[in-house]
Parts: sequence; C-alpha cells; structure tokens
Amino acid sequence: MTTIKDVANLAGVSVATVSRVINERGYVHADTRKKVEEAVKQLNFSPNEVARSLYKRKSKLIGLLLPDIANPYFPQLARGVEDRMQEQEFRLIFGNSDEDEQKEKDYIQTFIQNNVVGVISSTNYPHSSIYENLKIPVVFLDRTPLDSPSVFADGREGGRLAAREIIKRGSRRITVMQGPAHIKPAQDRFEGAIESIRQAGLDYRVIQTTSFSFNDVGLWADELFSKYGDTDGVIASNDIAAMAVLHEALRIGKKVPEDMQIIGFDDIPMSSLLSPGLSTIRQPAYEMGREAAGLLIKLVEQAPIENKHIQLPVSFIERGTTRKVNSDG
Amino acid sequence: MTTIKDVANLAGVSVATVSRVINERGYVHADTRKKVEEAVKQLNFSPNEVARSLYKRKSKLIGLLLPDIANPYFPQLARGVEDRMQEQEFRLIFGNSDEDEQKEKDYIQTFIQNNVVGVISSTNYPHSSIYENLKIPVVFLDRTPLDSPSVFADGREGGRLAAREIIKRGSRRITVMQGPAHIKPAQDRFEGAIESIRQAGLDYRVIQTTSFSFNDVGLWADELFSKYGDTDGVIASNDIAAMAVLHEALRIGKKVPEDMQIIGFDDIPMSSLLSPGLSTIRQPAYEMGREAAGLLIKLVEQAPIENKHIQLPVSFIERGTTRKVNSDG
Repeated sequence: MTTIKDVANLAGVSVATVSRVINERGYVHADTRKKVEEAVKQLNFSPNEVARSLYKRKSKLIGLLLPDIANPYFPQLARGVEDRMQEQEFRLIFGNSDEDEQKEKDYIQTFIQNNVVGVISSTNYPHSSIYENLKIPVVFLDRTPLDSPSVFADGREGGRLAAREIIKRGSRRITVMQGPAHIKPAQDRFEGAIESIRQAGLDYRVIQTTSFSFNDVGLWADELFSKYGDTDGVIASNDIAAMAVLHEALRIGKKVPEDMQIIGFDDIPMSSLLSPGLSTIRQPAYEMGREAAGLLIKLVEQAPIENKHIQLPVSFIERGTTRKVNSDG
Repeated sequence: MTTIKDVANLAGVSVATVSRVINERGYVHADTRKKVEEAVKQLNFSPNEVARSLYKRKSKLIGLLLPDIANPYFPQLARGVEDRMQEQEFRLIFGNSDEDEQKEKDYIQTFIQNNVVGVISSTNYPHSSIYENLKIPVVFLDRTPLDSPSVFADGREGGRLAAREIIKRGSRRITVMQGPAHIKPAQDRFEGAIESIRQAGLDYRVIQTTSFSFNDVGLWADELFSKYGDTDGVIASNDIAAMAVLHEALRIGKKVPEDMQIIGFDDIPMSSLLSPGLSTIRQPAYEMGREAAGLLIKLVEQAPIENKHIQLPVSFIERGTTRKVNSDG
C-alpha cells in the first residue's frame, strides 16, 4: 500500500509538505504543489479519508435519504441528485428509510457519523428532532416543511390538473384515491383534486390507501371496483396505484378509456410502456433531484441563496387511459 | 452536544472507563458497564463513529454497490440485503454505479474511506483491480466470478426454462433478445435459451441490445417487429424489455398470447400488473439479497463457511403472455 512517505520521496519534499497539499492547509508554493499532485497521481495514492476528515473536519460526502427505492419515482430523483453532485465532485451515499421513522433516524445518524457535509432527505418526518439538531445543511426533497430549504413539485396544482383533465374528457362519477395520510405531497394532490371536482359541481367518491407498496395496490384496486363499480373516472394516488386500477379494470372487462378513464401521478418510466399507455401528471423528478443538489451545494459552500424553496411545475401527460378532448368532453 | 465527559459524570466513572465500554475494549465490570450504558442511553450520546472506527478499526457499516437502481430488480435485492443486515445491526450505505466502471471505482473508494467492514457488489466488472486489492471481504451478488464468494441465480437454467416453456406452448419462430454483452447473467440466460431451442430442432432469430435502460428498450422492440414481424414467440432479456415488446405488439394490433407469446426475466413487482400479466422467469431477488448479506456477515465475523458460492433456483411464473399448455402446444 502506498503511504504518504512514498509520495514525499517521489516528490522530493517532506511528509509535512505532502500533508499540507492534501489537506489544503497552510502555504505551499505552486511548483511544489504540482510536484506533490503529480506524485499522488502517479502512485495512485488515496489518503485515508477518515484521518483526513478528522483533521480537516470536511469531506465531500453527501447523504441522500429516500423513503422507498422500490417505487420507481425515487430512483429518478436520485439520478438527478447524483448527476448534479458529480459535476462538482461531491460523492453520495444513499439510505432507504422504507417510510419508517426509526430507520430514517438510523440512517441520518450513520450519515453524520461518517462526516457527510450535507443531507438531502425525502422524509415523511421533516419535523423529527433529528433534523432540528443537525449541525449541517439539509435540503428536503419532495417534502415541504415551510421553514427549511426544500425542493418540491406543485402537488396541489397537480391534483387540480388531474381533476380538470378528467372532467373535460367526460368523467362524471369520479373516484379519487387518497394516498397515505403521513405523506404530505399525496395529501396535497388529493386536496387539489377534490377542490376542482367540487368547483365543477360534481360529486366524488374516495378510496383511502395506507401505502404505495406493490404488495398492497392490488387490494385497493379490488376495493374500488367492488365499492364503486359504476365509476367512470379514477384519479389515482400515484402511477403504481394507477397501474393496479388499469390492470383490474381490463381484467374484469372494462374498456379503458371508453368505460373508464384513469389518471396517474408521477410519470414513472414504465407509464409509457403500459397498454394503453398511462395518462398521468408528471412531476419532473430528475430536475427536482438536480435542483436539490444545487441548493445543497450552495448551502455547504455558504454561497448566497436567492430562494430556499424551489417549486417545480407539474404537467399533464396525455396517453391512452384518457379520451381525446372534444370527442366526449 | 453531549460529550463523553457528560456520560462519565452521569455514570460516576472516568472518561477512560466510558471509552472502554463504548469501544468494547479492555476489562470493565458488568455493573459499571451497565451504568455507562444507561448514561449513554439517557443522554442520547452518539460517539463520533469516525473517531471510534479509527480507534477500533472496526465499524458495523457495509457498502452495497448496485448497477442501476432504476431497474426495479435491484431494489428487491437491496431490500433483502438490508433486512438481513438489520437483524444483526449492521448498517448499509448504497452506491449506484450506473453500469459505469469509473463510477463503480469511485463508490468502492468512498466505501473504503468510510471504513466499511465489507462490501456487497452487483458489479459488471468483478475482475477490476479495485476488488483484487481490497483488504476487506467482498460478496458478489448476481454476478459470478468463479474464485470469489458470490450469490447468484441459475441464469443458464433460466434461459433453458424460458425456451422450453415457450416451445411447449407452441411458438415455432422464436426471437431471443440478447442482453448487454458486458452483463454476464444476461449472456448466461441467452446461451441457455438458444441451447434449448437448438435441442428442439428449431431455428431462432436474435435481437442484440446494449442496455436495460427504459430509454432504449422501446427502440429494440421496434427493431424486433420491423425485422422479424412474423415471430410468434419472444424470449426477452429481462422484464423491462418484455414490457416494451408487449406494449409494441399490442400497439400494432397483435394478439398476445394468441399471435405471439412473450416471456420475460426477473419477475419485477410490476410484471403482475401488466395487461395481460407478464409470464416470466423468476429470480428470487429478495432471497438472493438475504443470502449475500448472510454470507458477508460470516466473512466479516470470520465464522466457518460451508459454501462460498450460493446458487438459487429460478422458476417459471405463468401469467397471461403465454398460452395454456395443451391448448396450443
């Protein structure tokens, strides 16, 4: 294994000088710095990050907490964060909280104990004491505590948009799937949807769901059809729930979109691969990830920040589970 | 912030004693240990993991490298690893290599520099020098270098099984999608499939693909139908590719499974939510993750190991994209 002494020998300088270069501390002449950097490169020397971070109290490591990597929405967020971080040579470690508050605390603890310089958290528990006591910057992603830096999509407008589009296309007996109560963005979009349905003077039915997991969505789809078999329009809590509704509708012989329209939420990558393709409200997940990373980098580097709440727009993606406008609407 | 001194004061012992308890090093009387542990708990004291691991040279942190978290197969693996690790209080940090060798090296470096005690890697580059030089145990997951501890499914048998099942159900003009050349399990299943097709005395056509990404699968589905429009059976390289083929088949008016049967690979969670449901070869991803974690824990704890190559069986999951046996076969 290469040691700092090998680097010093090759560069023809003292160990202390190599240390100053590596730790970016104290004065080193530019020529000397260059020699050391070349020796580091040539020997493929990797200083022990732990020792370095103890000394410098500074790493370029960021912790990213996701609530559920099995939901294809979150890997898109993660990719955005990762790509943006990589541009400035920050590295990322992930934790998957599984929407469990204790697991989340454990991961944040792990991040801190490994000297991350900042955290991006898609948490359902932004008011948890663990965030309050953190001494490093946190950006909340896809979750919106009012007082902290955050990046999110306009969920309420997304709900309104889903309702307007499905009504415009002729649905009159609409069922709205209400996402898990502890997931704030799911509640925002639910409230937006019923706001627009009420404004249109229509009635609506609600199916309450308690998770977004693949194991459960089939059950709620069953419940929907057994309770509200005459429904002609479903606003799903997300694309996974919409997939389950579409599957069940086709299985029992409904025609989609003729008998029943379905609108999802998120626009996960597989939405376009369904048959018919899923109409949905798109959240710009990749861009949200990039924005959160950009905001956190600014916080870490103590750069000036114009806006610590970044809201990105949602949009309606028209595919095959909704009818063409004007043909029925 | 709570310090080790606060803990010592509350427990009525010296700082050195607290240190011995925390670092599980040297003799401490059981009663004293209990007092310290209670003080730690009461003060919610979290010793700096970095300082601890420097001192003890031992953490309970594991690094898990995944090639692509956007492919829903990998979050299932990750969940298995996580659940098993948690049972023995190991913690996990993730890296997502995006099937890029340089990114993979960077993540392994990050893991090491943060003093992980072991690595689980779903790598496409198991022979990379970075693994050779690691001084901590590595378990390869879903990838099978012959000389290193590994957990994998029987991909070749999976390929054979897909071919046997599709032939038994009447397909005669079969197209096999060959996965990316650098992904060994994809090549195994490809070779298994053509082996069984040849044994049945049938001809076959091949579509070569270079990635599993959602952005690209649609193109290969297009290519398949424009080149081999008369094909009556598709063995897809994985479930995502199968989804794209199913989507395109239905779009151009083919009846599935009457005109064309499709078999996927993996059994990702959304396979059952497609319409018709996707018939596929199941890899027991969750169980594979658990086995890999169990094997790594044994290696870390230097426990005796009976078998360092754990192969799990694959199975045929019959859904709606294949015909009932005996009706056409």
